Amino acid sequence: MRKVTVLTGGVGGAKLVLGLTALEFAPQVTAIVNTGDDFRHLGLAVSPDIDTLLYVLSGQDNRTQGWGREGESWSFMAALRSLGGADWFALGDGDLALHILRTSRLAAGEPLSEIVAGFARSWNIAARILPMSDDPVATMIDTDEGELAFQDYFVARQCRPVARAIRFAGAAGARPAPGVAEAILDPETDSILIAPSNPWLSVDPILAVPEIAYALATATAPIVAISPIVGGEAVKGPTAKLMREFGLPVTTEAIAAHYARVIDGILVDGRDTVSGLSLPYAVEDTLMRDLTDRKRVAAAALDLARTIACSGQH
Amino acid sequence: MRKVTVLTGGVGGAKLVLGLTALEFAPQVTAIVNTGDDFRHLGLAVSPDIDTLLYVLSGQDNRTQGWGREGESWSFMAALRSLGGADWFALGDGDLALHILRTSRLAAGEPLSEIVAGFARSWNIAARILPMSDDPVATMIDTDEGELAFQDYFVARQCRPVARAIRFAGAAGARPAPGVAEAILDPETDSILIAPSNPWLSVDPILAVPEIAYALATATAPIVAISPIVGGEAVKGPTAKLMREFGLPVTTEAIAAHYARVIDGILVDGRDTVSGLSLPYAVEDTLMRDLTDRKRVAAAALDLARTIACSGQH
Repeated sequence: MRKVTVLTGGVGGAKLVLGLTALEFAPQVTAIVNTGDDFRHLGLAVSPDIDTLLYVLSGQDNRTQGWGREGESWSFMAALRSLGGADWFALGDGDLALHILRTSRLAAGEPLSEIVAGFARSWNIAARILPMSDDPVATMIDTDEGELAFQDYFVARQCRPVARAIRFAGAAGARPAPGVAEAILDPETDSILIAPSNPWLSVDPILAVPEIAYALATATAPIVAISPIVGGEAVKGPTAKLMREFGLPVTTEAIAAHYARVIDGILVDGRDTVSGLSLPYAVEDTLMRDLTDRKRVAAAALDLARTIACSGQH
Repeated sequence: MRKVTVLTGGVGGAKLVLGLTALEFAPQVTAIVNTGDDFRHLGLAVSPDIDTLLYVLSGQDNRTQGWGREGESWSFMAALRSLGGADWFALGDGDLALHILRTSRLAAGEPLSEIVAGFARSWNIAARILPMSDDPVATMIDTDEGELAFQDYFVARQCRPVARAIRFAGAAGARPAPGVAEAILDPETDSILIAPSNPWLSVDPILAVPEIAYALATATAPIVAISPIVGGEAVKGPTAKLMREFGLPVTTEAIAAHYARVIDGILVDGRDTVSGLSLPYAVEDTLMRDLTDRKRVAAAALDLARTIACSGQH
């Protein structure tokens, strides 16, 4: 069986991983997931990107809303509001089970990676979901309103402040979670994909863990990014806004340049005309509305990786 | 305005307090609430008796079920079960707001009494709800299956083990919460009531806090217990079963004997014929099905206290 390793943030990456696992002759997928968005809220340990993968890969995700659980109820938030509790971050009733169990197991000394593996087993998820690290890493955004923790920027301030720089507190001293470096370096891994997640906010935290960067630099498998740019815009989230604030054109070329030291190839959306790309690329409709789309994008990324491997261009 | 102080456990005591606050010319009520049932579950600080008072006094209690919130939803428990989490203790979705806020505020160093006062303010509860202590006290039941913590005995084992003894771990070193001794000793307090809660499991933990016992012994207000025995049985819970296991007759006389050193009088249910009571008592229908019942029992207890005060029999 082929093995594929995916570096991913939340929603977009979860769609890609779902597409990979739904392919005929599906590869064995290991998802290395950003934990830079993880935070404590009301004392609870919340891991938004990991939980998105758990929900999407177990078929429990809310497809209308784009986040959280299908059929969620909201009694907790209503009661919390009636008690004057902080309600800027929405915690669904069923969603609380993940946060409460994670918090109590972390307090008992269990590492995040084992906790997540237990959740995935309970929900019969075939893909391996690995937090990038069991050590805390916090994405911090320096903005015109001062430095903001990720959720303060993303949820509370809805990405409105102008970003000037991003740092990943704790990343330099963080170790990859067990299995992460192995999944990158495994000789049976024939493709490493970077999901079309936000490069600056969702993928860079993973790359900021030194041993992960080193593993990627020494990996034998080709590394292929799926560009998050579709028709000169990002599909969702603040990617395009961030790029403009950093003085970058909102193009796949700028994405490729950002990942230049990491990737061997890039999957480009057919709506964008690319020029001056100095690395292998393929063109595909990369918008992932339904499972057919997700499988198509997954297959195209794997095809590009295979082409690169055969041509020896990495 | 009259002031009344009530020593209380959960359901039965909450009904009495509600009755007191609903009286015409309602007294100012301070409820001193048992915290011996408090425990940590899934890392959350749960205070069952305090929360019962919060729900009953804010009109949010589930009257059919007899515990928890009206209109509660159960998504959390379903998700918890799907993850293999411990599901022997039912936590409703809305109910989690109290537990999560309490846990995070305790972790931030706020005392339980202040947290509870904040909840009561948010829900416009006129009565003062005071935990008996801000220090942890744990009711432990020595049974034929070994020593069990309260919730293990009461919920997980549904009171089935045979009790041999009860102790209140931490009580000897616990201080009364701010306001507790004051509410007992306040010269304006003209009645101190002991709710028809379980004497051994719900009231004794309060009496086991040394400064509370001392305050009761020196209080000027008469102390009146409402007997939990109705027609030779306890209205609910394991009171009668415990009495039998301790070799006691299930009678109001045995309740009076248990409280002999504390009370000045006892309110007896009309279904029971009492004989040999050596302290003042009054007879009333003490079953509290609806608000009219609760007001009647509250008024009868206050009347008995007033009679005792006027006769100088305390």
